[in-house]
Amino acid sequence: MPAYKAPLRDMQFTLFEVLEIDKHYQSLPGCEEASADMVQAIMEEGAKFSERVLAPLNQIGDREGCKFDNGVVTTPTGFKEAYQQYVEGGWPSLAHAPEHGGQGLPESLGLIINEMTGTANWSWSMYPGLSHGAMNTLEAHGTDEQKHTYLTKLVSGEWTGTMCLTEPHCGTDLGLLRTKAEPQADGSYKVSGTKIFISAGEHDMAENIVHIVLARLPDAPAGTKGISLFIVPKFMPTAEGGIGERNAVSCGSIEHKMGIHGNSTCVMNFDGATGFLIGPPNKGLNCMFTFMNTARLGTALQGLAHAEWAFQNSLTYAKERLQMRALNGPAAPEKAADPIIVHPEVRKMLLTQKAFAEGARALIYYCATLVDRVKLLDGDERKEADELLALLTPIAKAFLTEVGYEAANHGVQIYGGHGFISEWGMEQNVRDSRISMLYEGTTQIQALDLLGRKVLMTQGETLRRFTKMIHKFCQSEEANEQLKPYVSQLASLNKEWGELTMQIGMSAMKNRDEVGAASVDYLMYSGYITLAFLWLRMAKTAQEKLATGQDVEFYQAKLRTCDFYFKRLLPRTRAHVACMQAGAEPLMALEAEHFAF
Amino acid sequence: MPAYKAPLRDMQFTLFEVLEIDKHYQSLPGCEEASADMVQAIMEEGAKFSERVLAPLNQIGDREGCKFDNGVVTTPTGFKEAYQQYVEGGWPSLAHAPEHGGQGLPESLGLIINEMTGTANWSWSMYPGLSHGAMNTLEAHGTDEQKHTYLTKLVSGEWTGTMCLTEPHCGTDLGLLRTKAEPQADGSYKVSGTKIFISAGEHDMAENIVHIVLARLPDAPAGTKGISLFIVPKFMPTAEGGIGERNAVSCGSIEHKMGIHGNSTCVMNFDGATGFLIGPPNKGLNCMFTFMNTARLGTALQGLAHAEWAFQNSLTYAKERLQMRALNGPAAPEKAADPIIVHPEVRKMLLTQKAFAEGARALIYYCATLVDRVKLLDGDERKEADELLALLTPIAKAFLTEVGYEAANHGVQIYGGHGFISEWGMEQNVRDSRISMLYEGTTQIQALDLLGRKVLMTQGETLRRFTKMIHKFCQSEEANEQLKPYVSQLASLNKEWGELTMQIGMSAMKNRDEVGAASVDYLMYSGYITLAFLWLRMAKTAQEKLATGQDVEFYQAKLRTCDFYFKRLLPRTRAHVACMQAGAEPLMALEAEHFAF
Repeated sequence: MPAYKAPLRDMQFTLFEVLEIDKHYQSLPGCEEASADMVQAIMEEGAKFSERVLAPLNQIGDREGCKFDNGVVTTPTGFKEAYQQYVEGGWPSLAHAPEHGGQGLPESLGLIINEMTGTANWSWSMYPGLSHGAMNTLEAHGTDEQKHTYLTKLVSGEWTGTMCLTEPHCGTDLGLLRTKAEPQADGSYKVSGTKIFISAGEHDMAENIVHIVLARLPDAPAGTKGISLFIVPKFMPTAEGGIGERNAVSCGSIEHKMGIHGNSTCVMNFDGATGFLIGPPNKGLNCMFTFMNTARLGTALQGLAHAEWAFQNSLTYAKERLQMRALNGPAAPEKAADPIIVHPEVRKMLLTQKAFAEGARALIYYCATLVDRVKLLDGDERKEADELLALLTPIAKAFLTEVGYEAANHGVQIYGGHGFISEWGMEQNVRDSRISMLYEGTTQIQALDLLGRKVLMTQGETLRRFTKMIHKFCQSEEANEQLKPYVSQLASLNKEWGELTMQIGMSAMKNRDEVGAASVDYLMYSGYITLAFLWLRMAKTAQEKLATGQDVEFYQAKLRTCDFYFKRLLPRTRAHVACMQAGAEPLMALEAEHFAF
Repeated sequence: MPAYKAPLRDMQFTLFEVLEIDKHYQSLPGCEEASADMVQAIMEEGAKFSERVLAPLNQIGDREGCKFDNGVVTTPTGFKEAYQQYVEGGWPSLAHAPEHGGQGLPESLGLIINEMTGTANWSWSMYPGLSHGAMNTLEAHGTDEQKHTYLTKLVSGEWTGTMCLTEPHCGTDLGLLRTKAEPQADGSYKVSGTKIFISAGEHDMAENIVHIVLARLPDAPAGTKGISLFIVPKFMPTAEGGIGERNAVSCGSIEHKMGIHGNSTCVMNFDGATGFLIGPPNKGLNCMFTFMNTARLGTALQGLAHAEWAFQNSLTYAKERLQMRALNGPAAPEKAADPIIVHPEVRKMLLTQKAFAEGARALIYYCATLVDRVKLLDGDERKEADELLALLTPIAKAFLTEVGYEAANHGVQIYGGHGFISEWGMEQNVRDSRISMLYEGTTQIQALDLLGRKVLMTQGETLRRFTKMIHKFCQSEEANEQLKPYVSQLASLNKEWGELTMQIGMSAMKNRDEVGAASVDYLMYSGYITLAFLWLRMAKTAQEKLATGQDVEFYQAKLRTCDFYFKRLLPRTRAHVACMQAGAEPLMALEAEHFAF
């Protein structure tokens, strides 16, 4: 049966040895408490909870799914109790402000814990994940009273939250949304409309649910400039901090879906439900954008989660399953056949999973340090971190979920026919991971965000900041004999990245479809280079540590995985470049009515 | 809701205009009757049955699945009745010999009909599909009496068949199998053992099931050279052609799996079941190999099926779903937003589906004509067709199922969040298609078969026969102004194919792992070139037909899809070449125990 063991050694390597997270925390106002020892201790507790409580519920959640009965949603066996333990352990409050009952630890530490809960059981981890989104909204835009009433309850975990954006006719294009909010004499609003795909919209894990809802005021301008944000609680809060009467919001049904069965995906009906405006009127989308990067990073994590889970379970199987002999002759002659890990193509799939999982970890942790900097610093330092994060977020979200899906599929493939059978857990991992390329903006939307908004709209300045950083790194390692081949490969890709961007920018001036036509290839290309940079940084750290003579096998494995990444994954950039350079014409020439006859 | 419409125009184009199937049939002994009119009429009937009877059962099959109760398997609502109609329509007997009740039509025509039944409902189509495998075995290796007793019943469709190969500890590595067959005084055998993953192993659609079982005789040599083939009927046949007493073979359970829920995947227990040897003792695997190509082509069809199904339903949605505006300004200003088919990345996914589906059709139909030639010709003509088919089969099986899965995944992506929701049918298509890369030999096994057995073991001779054919075609079109850019791209890839093969062959002499390490990239690379060749042949036909001034839009669309294929899909070969050239070292360097710490 599938299992999860938190990869603490690798997490420590990335956090402490590559990113020097302890120094990072010491440099941030209010985070001085987060010492290496403390971080370590919290990680170990998070690992225990994830391995022992959440991982065993992962298959149960898939098998049972959520049950819907007349507006009431029942989560799978054990989910509620696990949530109770999570609340008792103080996990919801980890990275929130002390004035609302939080522990005041850095946001990045929250993400690191989420890696473990999410890998152990993604469906379960979405319940607190959605709360986190609601908390961020309230923290950034709520009034003091709203924070007092709602945020403290969310921080304690007594209540959970949701984000209600999508409607049947609009997902990507929120400008089309129709849900209405009518102002009332008492300053509240009556919210009416139907929202779909509301994760954790209804469940039995907490006594109240705080919905953050996008809706239109009666006089709102059309399109995205007429959207406002509202708090709509399931139960009206009482003055004493308890729950009062039921609000006119209810779950109409839950979706039957490919995966994440343990999470309730709800149709939510708002029938004149009482709501309260958060932030300025008609600025709802802007308000949401303030923490969009964090939310998308939370989804990027799903790419890492499914890659890591696939890798761990594939490795176990590949060492145990006996089938055929190694091409160069028996490796385990005493057995009836060799373990399948002897076969080059099995190793290729395992190393692909490993290189993506460990590379994804480095990218997400690095972005998490940027989140800390954006949240806690000011002035140029903040601005720089913010812009870099803006550039890296669509890459992390889309690239990591795409390669996470690939890694999950390798898991099925390594198990052969057994991979298709539910009890082994590999097919669930594929099904669960498929959503990650769709929600929080599809891969295609991320790609347009990256190339259109983040790169071309800034005249390439944001990108140049990052390529300069890579360039400086490559320069500093030019004389590094062992890493030289990788350094020169990265340096030339880095140069090409800038040139290609310029080419696309030029052709986009004549035809804006050129941006769309290049975008997904551009995003994947950018992802491979970004991960190459991080792999090389990891290789450099490993090389330095090797000199100390400790943990030799661990560091050797890092260097070999880096070698694999550069030789067997990075060459995929060649196809993306050729496709981008073919331009928009091959995509646009065919009339819509001539696609089929 | 998803729907299926047989793409008759495209099928006709490929069959009659590109492959000139009517001339092909006229040239084959015993197929003269298969005139264009007759083929056309049979296709139309097949289309009606697939569209009206099978397609509406596809989602029902997924939702209900098969039920298991104490050895009895109940298929989903409507499956049994559809099978009855199939039998009444005479479909099982289409491509079988008249002496056993068949209609004597060419095997290729059977495959063409299977495209439609399989696309409409893959799970259902596996029941007759497995029968076909059993029939081919009996036809090739059965005694006259065996044919009389079993084959006629299978040909009429009254009984169905299975292929029982896999055991819990062996799938790929059949040399490890343990099922035993003890000879009895009356010439029969007692077969004992457990088989798993037996598709259609038990069901309620026919009165009897004929299992073809791989097992070992008591004195059999170890490994693959000690495997024999047996007929084990569910019910013993009576002298009158009816069914007698129940044999000691039973279904122990059915698997819960990712997809193809409508098909029963059975654990079959043989408890001293009565069986009859087919073919010579210990030659079971050789006997199976005689029709391995046909079986694998049947699975290659699944790649086409899921690509075509995804394409049709994605196209409908992309024309209807309104979301965002075209990058160059509103395309449908009278609507709230533009249909998503205006977006370049949506078009890219649609064109990818289309190019793979139509390319797959051409490759499979071409292979089907080779199957006819192998079956009906003699001497050099037969040998040549057989060798070419042997080369193309692993490409068709693995490449087409891999790209079929990609196309199915694009279907989910085009639907956005709705793609993840069951009722839209796109996620089922992904789940159903995932098995195609696993059964009948995984992609990795096909890749070793291609590079190791078919290419290197013949010193490249089989490959050279094919690359010569491509070379001749390119030469003949050198002066074709319109197709020149594609011709020169294909010609240079064709040359590179030979050179790369040589390189790998050389390095494999020193280290056999080089074959494994290159194999999947080599297979995918070969697949892209093979499809490029077929796309160019289609483009040439379209170009000729355009000159007649008829059906202009259809032929223009062919040329534009060819352009898309060459510019936006064929460049993927660049990544495969770079990966292959990196060799085995990056895959083999890491010790098995150092993959994780």
